Amino acid sequence: MAADAGSIAVAPRLLAADNVTTLLDSTEAFLFDCDGVIWKGDTLIEGVPETLEMLRTRGKKLVFVTNNSTKSRRQYAKKFQTLGLQVSEDEIFSSSFAAAMYLKSINFPPQKKVYVIGGEGILEELELAGFTGLGGPDDANKEAQLRPNCLFEHDKNVGAVVVGLDQYINYYKLQYGTLCIRENPGCLFIATNRDAVGHMTDLQEWPGAGCMVAAVCGSTQKEPIVVGKPSTFMMDYLLKQFQIDTSKMCMVGDRLDTDIMFGQNAGCKTLLVLSGVTNLSILQDPSNNIHPDFYTSKVSDFLGFNKS
Amino acid sequence: MAADAGSIAVAPRLLAADNVTTLLDSTEAFLFDCDGVIWKGDTLIEGVPETLEMLRTRGKKLVFVTNNSTKSRRQYAKKFQTLGLQVSEDEIFSSSFAAAMYLKSINFPPQKKVYVIGGEGILEELELAGFTGLGGPDDANKEAQLRPNCLFEHDKNVGAVVVGLDQYINYYKLQYGTLCIRENPGCLFIATNRDAVGHMTDLQEWPGAGCMVAAVCGSTQKEPIVVGKPSTFMMDYLLKQFQIDTSKMCMVGDRLDTDIMFGQNAGCKTLLVLSGVTNLSILQDPSNNIHPDFYTSKVSDFLGFNKS
Repeated sequence: MAADAGSIAVAPRLLAADNVTTLLDSTEAFLFDCDGVIWKGDTLIEGVPETLEMLRTRGKKLVFVTNNSTKSRRQYAKKFQTLGLQVSEDEIFSSSFAAAMYLKSINFPPQKKVYVIGGEGILEELELAGFTGLGGPDDANKEAQLRPNCLFEHDKNVGAVVVGLDQYINYYKLQYGTLCIRENPGCLFIATNRDAVGHMTDLQEWPGAGCMVAAVCGSTQKEPIVVGKPSTFMMDYLLKQFQIDTSKMCMVGDRLDTDIMFGQNAGCKTLLVLSGVTNLSILQDPSNNIHPDFYTSKVSDFLGFNKS
Repeated sequence: MAADAGSIAVAPRLLAADNVTTLLDSTEAFLFDCDGVIWKGDTLIEGVPETLEMLRTRGKKLVFVTNNSTKSRRQYAKKFQTLGLQVSEDEIFSSSFAAAMYLKSINFPPQKKVYVIGGEGILEELELAGFTGLGGPDDANKEAQLRPNCLFEHDKNVGAVVVGLDQYINYYKLQYGTLCIRENPGCLFIATNRDAVGHMTDLQEWPGAGCMVAAVCGSTQKEPIVVGKPSTFMMDYLLKQFQIDTSKMCMVGDRLDTDIMFGQNAGCKTLLVLSGVTNLSILQDPSNNIHPDFYTSKVSDFLGFNKS
């Protein structure tokens, strides 16, 4: 099995009766990715409500950490509710929220504006944090006019461009964001995340924020500041909220290069579930060098092993 | 001045009376980039007709090599004509044509299809070369439907995805191209070029093919085969058509990382004109390590120095 230089590669262990109790006992907070772990598209994954209920009963803190930036925390809480899960806004950390918190953490001047290539969720989080966003869904139907002697104007007061998953991506938004980054002095380029693809529907994967972010990298030839997983920005923020040592946290996710790496970067225990984008052959492929502590087919496996 | 390891960096010389005659006498073919050299958007650059006329009178072969893939050779010949220049299709090498010629050169099976993210020009060149293209302008107004239990279908017979500049880029096309590359066994990913930006209008730059190509790299996590400048594919093709030694060719362009690098990769002499995206401070910046043999403000400077 391939190992990083200087690290000892330990083969991931299958979650089973003999280790699940130790994992449960030694963990104070479970951090869950959502897409591929809790749901797929709009469909709840089997056994999730009972599993979360069991963990809460055992006094575990639950946190939901998602790279999907299309929704705000408020909109996520609604989605949980629609699916029959009682999760509060305070338990949700989305990359849309992370983008707004990042701007707050660097004291981004509130009189400056933020141009958004992405969904409503980013704009809502920006507004809640006291910032003025523009673009996003408002620019979904705008067309770039390529006419002689006609200048495409952009707001010189935009001090940051936030790029996330945008299913209404178009040339107008790409030109707007590119002009801000290239021409507004000091303008920041922030990516909610760089996931290549994601389960936008239950049946298949679709281009993720990594697609739109790469497009803006391509036109600006600049690299973004990433605030979602696997960047530790969200974890640093999270640690300020909860006084729990990361060694007592377990990150549960379906994606090696975001969820598991995020957990490992922060010093958490990690559990890969095979209910999303990663299957056993990807995990065990010799070219994969991201090794979670544990793996199992789905979160509700906790229930089968935990008979106490 | 920075030099590449192993090469001797020679400072570019300003084109002047003392070297223009030597350049003209030693060059049998002039290769011109178009955008920023011949025209800007739809506006002809001053003195171009007289310069081309002078070169033709002196028996020079003229070739127009453009990375812009939105038009076919036929459409380019028309654009030249509209601007008052007599240029034949045979003298034009566009990256749309290069994409079709690349597929021909590798014996791409004609029963396979080619999905296009890009303009009409690519589809026209594919058809002229005997291939079946789909996508492009036809998919400009299509919307990706993100519905539960609804599968986005793609043609399993697509064997290549060609990506160029696409001002009607959308999520539908990105998903279509991504699915072909990820799911159709052996499907090729071909980029017409990777220019970050280009003068889509006379007054300003816009995201170039490099933006759309990067987007597809982002969602597929694959790198494309590039057929336009600075790749030497076009030059190899060109050399088969004209029996001229590359040392007797001069590449004239406005862009260091495509035009000048293309000329240098092929062993041509190179002349940078400052009428496009590159100005003197970019050329002379210590971070720039692409040094043309000569530079001048615009192609018509040939006339001022050439009084013979």
